Amino acid sequence: MNTHAENEKSKPIGIFDSGIGGLTVVKSLLYMLPKESLIYFGDTARLPYGTKSKKTLIDFSLQNVDFLLKKNVKLIVVACNSASSAAIKEMQEYSPVPVIGVIEPGAISALNATKSKYIGIIGTRGTVQSGAYYRTLITMDSNVKILQQACPLLVPLIEEGWLFHQSTKNILSEYLVPFKNEKLIDVILLGCTHYPLLKHMIKEELPNVEIVDSASATSVIVEKYLQDNSLLNPIFENKIEEYYLSDITENFITLASEFLGKSIADKVKLYKNDN
Amino acid sequence: MNTHAENEKSKPIGIFDSGIGGLTVVKSLLYMLPKESLIYFGDTARLPYGTKSKKTLIDFSLQNVDFLLKKNVKLIVVACNSASSAAIKEMQEYSPVPVIGVIEPGAISALNATKSKYIGIIGTRGTVQSGAYYRTLITMDSNVKILQQACPLLVPLIEEGWLFHQSTKNILSEYLVPFKNEKLIDVILLGCTHYPLLKHMIKEELPNVEIVDSASATSVIVEKYLQDNSLLNPIFENKIEEYYLSDITENFITLASEFLGKSIADKVKLYKNDN
Repeated sequence: MNTHAENEKSKPIGIFDSGIGGLTVVKSLLYMLPKESLIYFGDTARLPYGTKSKKTLIDFSLQNVDFLLKKNVKLIVVACNSASSAAIKEMQEYSPVPVIGVIEPGAISALNATKSKYIGIIGTRGTVQSGAYYRTLITMDSNVKILQQACPLLVPLIEEGWLFHQSTKNILSEYLVPFKNEKLIDVILLGCTHYPLLKHMIKEELPNVEIVDSASATSVIVEKYLQDNSLLNPIFENKIEEYYLSDITENFITLASEFLGKSIADKVKLYKNDN
Repeated sequence: MNTHAENEKSKPIGIFDSGIGGLTVVKSLLYMLPKESLIYFGDTARLPYGTKSKKTLIDFSLQNVDFLLKKNVKLIVVACNSASSAAIKEMQEYSPVPVIGVIEPGAISALNATKSKYIGIIGTRGTVQSGAYYRTLITMDSNVKILQQACPLLVPLIEEGWLFHQSTKNILSEYLVPFKNEKLIDVILLGCTHYPLLKHMIKEELPNVEIVDSASATSVIVEKYLQDNSLLNPIFENKIEEYYLSDITENFITLASEFLGKSIADKVKLYKNDN
């Protein structure tokens, strides 16, 4: 029996995000890989990341990676589009364990889904301006056509809990106009981990378009990596599930439950990563 | 000639906020006290403050005070409702120079304006939940009646630049319903430094109500303090005006100009306060 290999398999997967949006990735991981231990870090004291500069995001991301490495994780998932687009290379160079962002899995999934080779992308202003999805898609398939739209108000609307509110519908409808005008677009890539919570409304606005979300796409890539490297945890026993936030408020706890579909009130600990 | 006293007078006023909202206070100070030097710090790397816990806000606020003290200011204005409500006492105990928040000036101004003694307050969720305006008003006049409403989406809408957008109007209109139903309310206190940018819409929704904003109210108190303590700068010469942000993006610079009514692109410097 190879004890070292068994130990490696039982190590947790580390996940971080600027806040609680990355819990859509956790939800997907819990569903697809129920035997894996998970350690989540949400940098709620410094959210949002979407409005911050590349330099600042690199600093923050490396601090978050450090924290997860101290927790002895076997793999790090960057469940944050802003951090993935600004700092994935820096994190991969820095970390001794693999670092998987949400951009590449989302791009692969969108390319697999499109027939027309014309893909729409929605995200925060930071993600769209970074051009990360755009570059990744073009590198993978130079024939693909892309239309991007920044939707800065969707995260605040989701965090307000207005998931079925008329104003959310109006604002979303306005943001999606460019896609309605481009009939050839057959795939919309949700370039923000919050957006799966508005899937029902996006589907209503764009009934003939397939919706691809990075959260689910990332879980698929994580599973594949663990399988290919014989790192899947084979047993349910001693599984851990921990959530750390750099700032804890009642609102974060309520929202977290909304994102995850279950309460994490008894699993949340405070961790300050900036000093 | 008292050189020490002259030196004290020529020192700058320090102002800080979580981001660029506090520039409405700066705008008011520049208008009312054009001879004063100003040093502004916006903690854009860690905004917003409205969603963060009291403990975290105390940490951040004291770091910001430290920075302004190093800049040799004669007075500190906390142009941020969240920091004012969470940490004003801690800052006043800590700082050797006076610290003036926005809560008390706003409250005084609202009390001066109301005839019916029934005051409405709007602010971020953090400011409303803290109850800071409520407590301050009740302490000043135990007969006053207060109705508060959190409006978490107004800041994102303002930062999106949607100052005349139909969705902003709809959302604002919904937030203001409780005030429309209470005919006796004759004053609305804007408990957020962003909100003066929506004054035109609030006026439209509540035409018979007087709008009091903390930004202008705070400038009045600052002027009074400097006057009472013979600290007003008597001359225009060598006046400085500096803006520091903990993160700089193009969007912040554009927004700053909107808040201030003039460009500060050539006056902005980066200052990291978290390490």
